[in-house]
Amino acid sequence: MNIVEVVKEYVKYPSISADPAFADGVKGTYEFLSNLLKKAGAVPEIVPTRGNPVVVGRFNADRKDLPHIVIYGHYDVQPVDPLELWETPPFEATERDGKIFGRGTADNKGPHAVSVVALANLLARRPDLPLRVTFVFEGEEEIGSTHFREFLDAHAAELSEGDFVLLSDTSSPSENEIAITIGLRGMMGLEVNVEGPNSDLHSGLHGGAVMNPLQALMEVCASLHNADGTVNVPGFYDGVQEPAAWEREEFSRFPQSEEDYKKFLDVDALYNIPGYNPLECARFMPTLEFNGVGGGYQGSGSKTIVPAKAFAKITCRLVPGQDPADIREKVSAAILSRMPAGVRVKLTPMQGNPAYFVCPPNRPNTPADMNPALARAFEAAEKIITEKFGNAPIYTREGGSIGIIEDFRRVTGMDSLMIGFFTADSRIHAPNENADISMLEKGVATYEAIFESCAGTR
Amino acid sequence: MNIVEVVKEYVKYPSISADPAFADGVKGTYEFLSNLLKKAGAVPEIVPTRGNPVVVGRFNADRKDLPHIVIYGHYDVQPVDPLELWETPPFEATERDGKIFGRGTADNKGPHAVSVVALANLLARRPDLPLRVTFVFEGEEEIGSTHFREFLDAHAAELSEGDFVLLSDTSSPSENEIAITIGLRGMMGLEVNVEGPNSDLHSGLHGGAVMNPLQALMEVCASLHNADGTVNVPGFYDGVQEPAAWEREEFSRFPQSEEDYKKFLDVDALYNIPGYNPLECARFMPTLEFNGVGGGYQGSGSKTIVPAKAFAKITCRLVPGQDPADIREKVSAAILSRMPAGVRVKLTPMQGNPAYFVCPPNRPNTPADMNPALARAFEAAEKIITEKFGNAPIYTREGGSIGIIEDFRRVTGMDSLMIGFFTADSRIHAPNENADISMLEKGVATYEAIFESCAGTR
Repeated sequence: MNIVEVVKEYVKYPSISADPAFADGVKGTYEFLSNLLKKAGAVPEIVPTRGNPVVVGRFNADRKDLPHIVIYGHYDVQPVDPLELWETPPFEATERDGKIFGRGTADNKGPHAVSVVALANLLARRPDLPLRVTFVFEGEEEIGSTHFREFLDAHAAELSEGDFVLLSDTSSPSENEIAITIGLRGMMGLEVNVEGPNSDLHSGLHGGAVMNPLQALMEVCASLHNADGTVNVPGFYDGVQEPAAWEREEFSRFPQSEEDYKKFLDVDALYNIPGYNPLECARFMPTLEFNGVGGGYQGSGSKTIVPAKAFAKITCRLVPGQDPADIREKVSAAILSRMPAGVRVKLTPMQGNPAYFVCPPNRPNTPADMNPALARAFEAAEKIITEKFGNAPIYTREGGSIGIIEDFRRVTGMDSLMIGFFTADSRIHAPNENADISMLEKGVATYEAIFESCAGTR
Repeated sequence: MNIVEVVKEYVKYPSISADPAFADGVKGTYEFLSNLLKKAGAVPEIVPTRGNPVVVGRFNADRKDLPHIVIYGHYDVQPVDPLELWETPPFEATERDGKIFGRGTADNKGPHAVSVVALANLLARRPDLPLRVTFVFEGEEEIGSTHFREFLDAHAAELSEGDFVLLSDTSSPSENEIAITIGLRGMMGLEVNVEGPNSDLHSGLHGGAVMNPLQALMEVCASLHNADGTVNVPGFYDGVQEPAAWEREEFSRFPQSEEDYKKFLDVDALYNIPGYNPLECARFMPTLEFNGVGGGYQGSGSKTIVPAKAFAKITCRLVPGQDPADIREKVSAAILSRMPAGVRVKLTPMQGNPAYFVCPPNRPNTPADMNPALARAFEAAEKIITEKFGNAPIYTREGGSIGIIEDFRRVTGMDSLMIGFFTADSRIHAPNENADISMLEKGVATYEAIFESCAGTR
């Protein structure tokens, strides 16, 4: 199978999960994918959910004795507007400058098609491949994987037989510098609502006699960071697993400078906490961030009121060693204990999920009980990536959160190997999304090598 | 003239200045007022402005030798919606329970009609009254006295011949407890805009490496008050003229308890600064108030961003001894010097006007050069109010700002005698606005006594 031909065909079906008008496009997509799995040598099944179905492909499903890789991907795509900014139609894949342009080429049709093509090509050479592979491709990733957790629970027994999850839905620094993501931050969200007087008050008649809810809220919010940038909540850093020395050294290879980052963001100074530079802080350290704050008059000009209420939406990004429920309790306690008299406060918990970290093999902190198939996969990936891309992969953590990675671990016990096959130039979620053809082709070779290595045939 | 009959007739004309659809009502009102002044014995003039005209009434205009009172009022009224909450039509004055209901009965047609009726009635007894009176009734008070300052400037020479301004556009605690307002707070407004990164950022990918503009703004805003409630801006209280002992003693007569105030506002604690109780703080002390703050995600649920920008709208209420320009400079300097690295800040000046204070006669701090006509007016008011209402008037300051009072002083040198003829029950600006008939009738007697006293005939 030719990855470029496959991706071109695959992109034709507009599987925009956010818009019910594209139900036909979703159907066309999962039917195409099901057929593709069949052609590759797997047994496809379209598993209905309360939302879009999950496409499952099984190879050697009855061989419980073999190493077993679970491959994750998502066949749904982002909306395409503003359509007028696309240089070529989003659902007609177009090749130019060594890239394929089209919605889904990079996120995520191209990268997960790589895994199917790799199996097909490998089986052409080794029809008796001693490996079990289960493909799991969902259709709702772009709308929050709404029903994927239910699917996971329902298929927990089968999936728990897997050795690890292999996926490509993370980014790499460039076409020649491949990142293997070994950590993701978790999240804890909290909304703070402060209420003072029963209505907005005339600031002349009442100002000075009443605690202003905005003043109360801002005083408490301002107290949540120390002058050195750290979070000022008792116990916030308790148990935080700091990155190992090798990880920080590895990260120093990451091709991004503070100067470039400042220019990119258009700020005159970055932020950090003692002991870590700003780039490290965004990946290795937890945060307490104000996502939205509001209260009182929001229009132009002025309105001289003491507002009746104010709110702050807070999320913490968490790192390994922090528990979302514990952090929520500690942040809540700090807020409640610091709120001044004269206002009432209500805290509403929002989303929460723990951080994720998987240590590659052969490191000082590699767990003794690391799954051997996963260890072989890491080693194979490192070798083939170095060979094909000309640079050893960069093991890195991402600052964001991918809830399903932690879900896979919780439900099935599997860790994940995440290899990035798109870059910042791939414009995912934006007009003119594209995939670098050489990345896809080398990606197929990488997946083949991982399959062979896990099968013990390479 | 009968004040009740006059008010009933006067209310008929819907002079809503905020709504151009009521231009006819405005015209009907100023024509009625002009005729009323004529009937009372004054020479009326409808003085055009770029907005609604000012109705001027002159009595003894050529007698520059006589004591000269300038009487201020406004003939425009607030809109009437929600109309369905009115028990009787707003522009058909209705008498019940000793009150007249209708838009403008209390704010301000009734109270300034009192002054015209008082002159008419007094002239009926003393046609040769040795007093000069100039009535100045504007038609744009409810929309910010937009063109009144131009009128003042244009008539500065004539008005500067006045001894003082007499008006009734402030409130009293109850029908039997009349407040004479001797102070008003000033104002200084400032908008703070903070900008960080050039767009909202993914809080996972960038959080921890970038100063969050909301964090920066809230840390600076939180620094603007000390733990004891005072404003933490160097020099903020410099020159503040604290109230004299007699003033605080006088204010202790004010029939409002902290417990009632807490219930009214529905808060469990009030606010104050050392040395002053909350009720005093709202009248005698300056404030720094957050009228509106916003930034980042304002919708329901959560959006995990580091926002690109944030704003705060701040106003300070000022007291005598503080200069708006000086305070603006000091607050601006504090904000700029405390803003952390990584954000840009822009300050936009908003409105500003100084506080106002006039000391009654016979007090330890009465100025030696107090205008003798004004002193006589205060004395007459005190005497007649005590006699008619059964309680001595309460000299008090209001926490709000009335810009034209300071304008009169600045342009003409005149101080103001402000006697309140409405109460909280009068529902000004709300449905079922009403005036207490006994207050209006005793008000006429009060104005007659002041006229006579100034004329030296009582």
